[in-house]
Amino acid sequence: MGSEREAYRVLTWRDGAIEMIDQRLLPGEVRYVAYTDYRAVAEAIRSMVVRGAPSIGVAAGYGMALAVLGSSATEPVALRQEIAAAAAVLRASRPTAVNLFWAIDRVMDRIAQTANNLDAIRAAALAEAQAIDNENARTCEAIGRNALPLIPDHARIVHHCNTGALATAHYGTALGVVRAAYEAGKAPHVYVDETRPRLQGARLTAWELQQLGIPHTVIVDGASGHIMRTIGVDLCVVGCDRVAANGDTANKIGTYNLALVARAHNVPFYVVGPLSTLDLTLPHGDAIPIEERDPAEVTQIGAEQITPNGVNVANPAFDVTPAHLITAIITEADIAYPPYTESLARLVEEDEGAVSNTLNPTTGAL
Amino acid sequence: MGSEREAYRVLTWRDGAIEMIDQRLLPGEVRYVAYTDYRAVAEAIRSMVVRGAPSIGVAAGYGMALAVLGSSATEPVALRQEIAAAAAVLRASRPTAVNLFWAIDRVMDRIAQTANNLDAIRAAALAEAQAIDNENARTCEAIGRNALPLIPDHARIVHHCNTGALATAHYGTALGVVRAAYEAGKAPHVYVDETRPRLQGARLTAWELQQLGIPHTVIVDGASGHIMRTIGVDLCVVGCDRVAANGDTANKIGTYNLALVARAHNVPFYVVGPLSTLDLTLPHGDAIPIEERDPAEVTQIGAEQITPNGVNVANPAFDVTPAHLITAIITEADIAYPPYTESLARLVEEDEGAVSNTLNPTTGAL
Repeated sequence: MGSEREAYRVLTWRDGAIEMIDQRLLPGEVRYVAYTDYRAVAEAIRSMVVRGAPSIGVAAGYGMALAVLGSSATEPVALRQEIAAAAAVLRASRPTAVNLFWAIDRVMDRIAQTANNLDAIRAAALAEAQAIDNENARTCEAIGRNALPLIPDHARIVHHCNTGALATAHYGTALGVVRAAYEAGKAPHVYVDETRPRLQGARLTAWELQQLGIPHTVIVDGASGHIMRTIGVDLCVVGCDRVAANGDTANKIGTYNLALVARAHNVPFYVVGPLSTLDLTLPHGDAIPIEERDPAEVTQIGAEQITPNGVNVANPAFDVTPAHLITAIITEADIAYPPYTESLARLVEEDEGAVSNTLNPTTGAL
Repeated sequence: MGSEREAYRVLTWRDGAIEMIDQRLLPGEVRYVAYTDYRAVAEAIRSMVVRGAPSIGVAAGYGMALAVLGSSATEPVALRQEIAAAAAVLRASRPTAVNLFWAIDRVMDRIAQTANNLDAIRAAALAEAQAIDNENARTCEAIGRNALPLIPDHARIVHHCNTGALATAHYGTALGVVRAAYEAGKAPHVYVDETRPRLQGARLTAWELQQLGIPHTVIVDGASGHIMRTIGVDLCVVGCDRVAANGDTANKIGTYNLALVARAHNVPFYVVGPLSTLDLTLPHGDAIPIEERDPAEVTQIGAEQITPNGVNVANPAFDVTPAHLITAIITEADIAYPPYTESLARLVEEDEGAVSNTLNPTTGAL
């Protein structure tokens, strides 16, 4: 598992608490914070102490476990009511990342299937949170393995936002693809979109690549086309916050522009994420809700106000890249190619088949 | 003339000095600095106290005048040698903006045509600098007038970098088009690309639009595609730092990405600038030198360092937008449409014809 090799820990369950690296302080300061209250976990998700769809899923799973373990309820009925209330609080923390809802639902389902006994419910909640965590680690590594045939030697790769261990609690998704290529000796070079407004690329991806020793160059988001035109780029890899049934993909603002720029240069554009990021209940991307965040993310950087007072700002946190701009979607199960309505549905069906053969999450037989 | 209506002055010749607003301090502080030494003017251009190709041209013209007026030479031959040395210093301040070289050459040519007399040379240098300044004002207003038929009522306009009075010493080029539309009652709304790394959009364009009362919304550069897809945009206007004979256009980094995004949405993409920005000696954009600036512009914002220490950065200040992505090039003479090799050459020919009829810069008969 990749996490043993990390110089840093992202999300660690220890002594009845979930410890998180405060990603808002990176790269200037490496600070770990231990949470024992699910409300604080919800606030940590909202304020982006922890960010990235898979990391949010893992954090929400442990948040649910904390709600159960921290309850003073003396009857299963009362405990189940408290758990439902905690789930609502955690659900309200961020609107777009499907992993949040998926992780909460997994813990809720597991508890629903558990005998009406306080100790059994407590054990089931923690076991399910840990199962999400462990599956997440295996998923990231499988994604990296699956992507390898798509990455040429000495690949020049544009990457947007942060999709490394910080975003996924483990090896990474899109950045995990880069890492797998690096570990396989393919000597990739990463052009790191700084990713305004929150600068996850400049702050987090550059930091992770530095820790891992992978060569990289930070650029402003507007420079990707210039790099493609003058230096040449072999592929783009991005994560995903939610993928609709037809392959339309919600991801960090700026992803859609990058996809259009890549298409104009015939540069393959790969979306990378776990099957849990697929939301096949949504027929297409226009059905994905897009979070509008605080204008201060645009108007201020650190202590510095960059705009005049009282300026009007739009700050959509995500955009939707239409499926026709996506060369392939790389998951832990396999690589999906267009038409995605068929290929994604098939991946999910096969995965559900595989899951029912090897583990049955509704009974917890892991 | 637009400048009487300004709430702010950009470049003003007064009492033997050129006074500039320090654009690096905007929008937080409005500070005027008076320069009496051409070397300080060169440094002001280099450090971007003054920026924007036409403003740089006006500043360089007055810089040449200061070199002449400040000389202690007692013989015309010695004065001419000092002027040539000053021209070299001013030329070395920024590599990409053709207006810089054009303005210096104009003053040099005027002096070369002037009688071998200290007073005559002094008068000629200042007269030519002021002629550049005044022509610049008339040019901007003509650009705005010419563009009006292209701007629909209630136009939603994406604008990149800063091309207002701050960039042009007067009414503006691309932002002058917006301003002309606003003054004509067309009620435009501007989506202001913040324009990383130096944030000229967020800092300067938003400030100018606020001063002028023109409605606007600041966005990160990566959000333009999302705005086009979800809200709709009627046109993009950008300035230009150098336009090659075939219409390929060097402009602030991020312009090329915006042009690609606009093309994907069939949004007209207009390049706006004076004829002096054309460089018909260059056959195409690949011949335009692209300035690579200090990595600190990317790694630091104000006092805030956003990347890890020692990270590798690429910071190209400009990119080249190929002519095929440009719907039209709007100049003070007329609007040029593709194929640009013909239309731009015709505009320049006609302009040179018009100039030789109405004023002869080589004899100073203004």
